Amino acid sequence: MPEIRKDYATPTWVVFSAARSQRPGAFRNPKDATPKETCPFCEGHEAMTPPEVLAYRDGGKPNGPGWSIRCVPNKFPALERVGDVREHRDGPFVSVDGVGAHEIIVESPEHGEHLATLDDRRVEQVLQAYRERYHDLAADRRVRYVQIFKNHGERAGASFSHPHSQIIAIPIVPLRILEEFEGVRAHAVDRDGECLFCEILRRELSVGRRVVAENGAFVALEPFAARFPFETWILPKVHARAFETLSDPDRGALARILKDILGRMARMLDDPSFNYYIHTAPVREPEGTYHWHLEITPYLTEIAGFERGTGFYINPVVPEDAAAILKGEIRWSAARPSAT
Amino acid sequence: MPEIRKDYATPTWVVFSAARSQRPGAFRNPKDATPKETCPFCEGHEAMTPPEVLAYRDGGKPNGPGWSIRCVPNKFPALERVGDVREHRDGPFVSVDGVGAHEIIVESPEHGEHLATLDDRRVEQVLQAYRERYHDLAADRRVRYVQIFKNHGERAGASFSHPHSQIIAIPIVPLRILEEFEGVRAHAVDRDGECLFCEILRRELSVGRRVVAENGAFVALEPFAARFPFETWILPKVHARAFETLSDPDRGALARILKDILGRMARMLDDPSFNYYIHTAPVREPEGTYHWHLEITPYLTEIAGFERGTGFYINPVVPEDAAAILKGEIRWSAARPSAT
Repeated sequence: MPEIRKDYATPTWVVFSAARSQRPGAFRNPKDATPKETCPFCEGHEAMTPPEVLAYRDGGKPNGPGWSIRCVPNKFPALERVGDVREHRDGPFVSVDGVGAHEIIVESPEHGEHLATLDDRRVEQVLQAYRERYHDLAADRRVRYVQIFKNHGERAGASFSHPHSQIIAIPIVPLRILEEFEGVRAHAVDRDGECLFCEILRRELSVGRRVVAENGAFVALEPFAARFPFETWILPKVHARAFETLSDPDRGALARILKDILGRMARMLDDPSFNYYIHTAPVREPEGTYHWHLEITPYLTEIAGFERGTGFYINPVVPEDAAAILKGEIRWSAARPSAT
Repeated sequence: MPEIRKDYATPTWVVFSAARSQRPGAFRNPKDATPKETCPFCEGHEAMTPPEVLAYRDGGKPNGPGWSIRCVPNKFPALERVGDVREHRDGPFVSVDGVGAHEIIVESPEHGEHLATLDDRRVEQVLQAYRERYHDLAADRRVRYVQIFKNHGERAGASFSHPHSQIIAIPIVPLRILEEFEGVRAHAVDRDGECLFCEILRRELSVGRRVVAENGAFVALEPFAARFPFETWILPKVHARAFETLSDPDRGALARILKDILGRMARMLDDPSFNYYIHTAPVREPEGTYHWHLEITPYLTEIAGFERGTGFYINPVVPEDAAAILKGEIRWSAARPSAT
């Protein structure tokens, strides 16, 4: 069983998973994309993955062709749904048993697709699959947080180029969510219960300089203290604590704005590697204000010793310039992005 | 002037520095190492950098050849020693003026050197330069933290292959140091003032499974919850709050153990890219227990959406195996590192 250990001094947790060391390219930066012939996510190759846990199909049998979205357990899982979450504590050595889940959501049967150019309807299906898998994993009493995320491109950690997302369910609320929760809590105490993210939305929309796009239900903006060039957040306009409560009409609006932003990045930044991940309230945590959102972080600069050592970032592109570039108001030049 | 902004909800700070966007390879992963001919850190090329702030020389004039170690301001600095640190606060928008410093310590006049194969005496000189520059930068009343670090190799963010370290002085105590301080403080309250790191040293040395090397003054170990494969920490055996108080004899011991660990990594892990950085007590912070140390983090796996989203890490190599591999007890195989 994998083990989840806590850092001696800080609430940083680490999953130790020997299975992860066996996946293709675990310790190498693969120089070539996985070829179609050996891609486990291509239609017709269903036998190369564990059996599916969810699929949207026009026909065909489970674990055969005919699907548009297919969810499978990760063949090299960081965590599995086996056993109890026991804590082990011996002075500064703290660990819990590595119980959780690690799944893949294959976004298309086509090897060369990109989420930004799928039909709106297909992107909605991807979001629908996120929600369905979220609910199933969150129903497990051992799970405290469900992280939905996507790695696109080699620099962003994608081992396969076939378009896919991932979900990892963990038995601990992670540090970044705890930190955000605490910030939102402190703000609510100061401001008579107002949600911090609602205030940000109100103020960012009134100024507009960091807003890239909006529709009836969502806003896409460059956060005031973006850690990475062109880091972009998508937030629901109406206060909503948790992603998994997303309504059907809002799912359409989210699909459109997500496609829009990923398309702008692909066109204007030369298809960069990126991650995105959804920040939502912890599972079965009835207390505390929160406002779910999706954060997109492209890879255009390297994270290095300063960032690893301090948790302090250096970003050469101010968010106001990044927004103007993504809106097409000024042109991105890698040599001098803020030349206006 | 650069601007340092705080994240809306968390104590994550970001320096926005347009100067950084103009350095070579700022937005590209350079595929080739800088050639010697155009390397600003090579002997004879002193005019390619800003004037030196410190150099160890056997002869020659300032800013000419004849040096063994040379420190210069970064030509593309994240921060500069100009102006006052004013805070700007407008609801969730918090920033301070970007005052600080960013310097380069060129470790050798030779382009192709590696810290692991320099003479012991030369590595001691590098550490001596760290200490001298630390004291000068920390004397600036505007500086709250001085981060000494090194990026080696392209994946670790080194823009130049010529061996060098960097120092960034910032007007804010960074998140990771605050978190460690808080952990050490909480431990001292529980344990009648005992230093957390002193307890870790005592226990790790008595078990030995995660200890890679030790000498009279220092221990090198794989931390219990290493975030990265082969992450290695070097800690002084005798309680010491701050790196900058390092004595001359201890400097020799640190040089030897640092060379030893970097040499093991270069030989056994095929010269991986790595960062190291020194964690020390904040400048002019008389309160609070701390125990300085140096953390080395090789790049063998990718950090991806899960880690960025959560601050939770997945590490495929358990520290006990990493220690055994670095001690030569078991062989590292990228395909299956924990096969014993």
